[in-house]
Amino acid sequence: MDVFDALHTRRSIRKYLQKGIPEDLVQQILAAAMMAPSAGNERPWQFVLVSEQEKKEQIKAAHPYAGMMANAPLGILICGDLTKQKHEGFWVQDCSAAMQNLLLAAHASGLGAVWTGIYPVEDRVKQFSTIFNLPEQIIPFGLAVMGWPDQSSKTPERFDPSRIHRNTWQGG
Amino acid sequence: MDVFDALHTRRSIRKYLQKGIPEDLVQQILAAAMMAPSAGNERPWQFVLVSEQEKKEQIKAAHPYAGMMANAPLGILICGDLTKQKHEGFWVQDCSAAMQNLLLAAHASGLGAVWTGIYPVEDRVKQFSTIFNLPEQIIPFGLAVMGWPDQSSKTPERFDPSRIHRNTWQGG
Repeated sequence: MDVFDALHTRRSIRKYLQKGIPEDLVQQILAAAMMAPSAGNERPWQFVLVSEQEKKEQIKAAHPYAGMMANAPLGILICGDLTKQKHEGFWVQDCSAAMQNLLLAAHASGLGAVWTGIYPVEDRVKQFSTIFNLPEQIIPFGLAVMGWPDQSSKTPERFDPSRIHRNTWQGG
Repeated sequence: MDVFDALHTRRSIRKYLQKGIPEDLVQQILAAAMMAPSAGNERPWQFVLVSEQEKKEQIKAAHPYAGMMANAPLGILICGDLTKQKHEGFWVQDCSAAMQNLLLAAHASGLGAVWTGIYPVEDRVKQFSTIFNLPEQIIPFGLAVMGWPDQSSKTPERFDPSRIHRNTWQGG
């Protein structure tokens, strides 16, 4: 798939067919995520693949916007690894770039996915840390819920020229 | 360009030819950035295009890693717009996704770019706010420095299987 097509047609997909995702495709998607840029190339990320039904149900109970996890073949939890951080505070941005790569790679592969936010909501961070037995320095950042799409996809364009300024702030 | 090719071959480019970037290409890149996902589709971003030499020199003076701005045809400053935030604290992730889309769109267009971090470094936030006369609710997030590449590009693969865990945390 062409890059611009992917950027413009990717959208959040929350309904999935009951059909698994081949392991080699999962690896390709993770490889794409790990190619994201990061501050000082620190790559402060870890990935937890979620395929067990019990874990999926725990996620559904823990996260107000991740109910579809229970019916999805795969979740990918991205965590920030503070032990790898060189530039303080940038791990959130690094993990976000990895997440966006992951979503684009999934979309380009015909999968549908949605990014559900965890950090910085304290209660969610606590619950995901417990569910996945995360050490103190590993922070649950965000969860991609993923599967073969079972919903039609239309993407309204979001271009808004009022958001563009030149050389200084313009407007209110 | 194919999506996976783009994801794997994009890298930070810091040397540029002395050649401008057509306005319609800049608009395409901004449109791609604005297609990023955001929490609750809040789209809390603003973009300041930097083309004036005086502003470029001010950036060079303000940011320890953005010296190349002085010799680049274009900078794109992404700002978080707190007035548009629905889910507190997620604007950083939203702006990061927009930045990653922007970098991929630039790369797919033959341009080279590099993401230089501003937020959450207090001193940089203060200086960029002054340079661009930003209102209190507009937070300078990150700067993409951009131009036609004048350096060769090799990208080491970053795939690391030790970062992948299954259904629970594994390893130290």
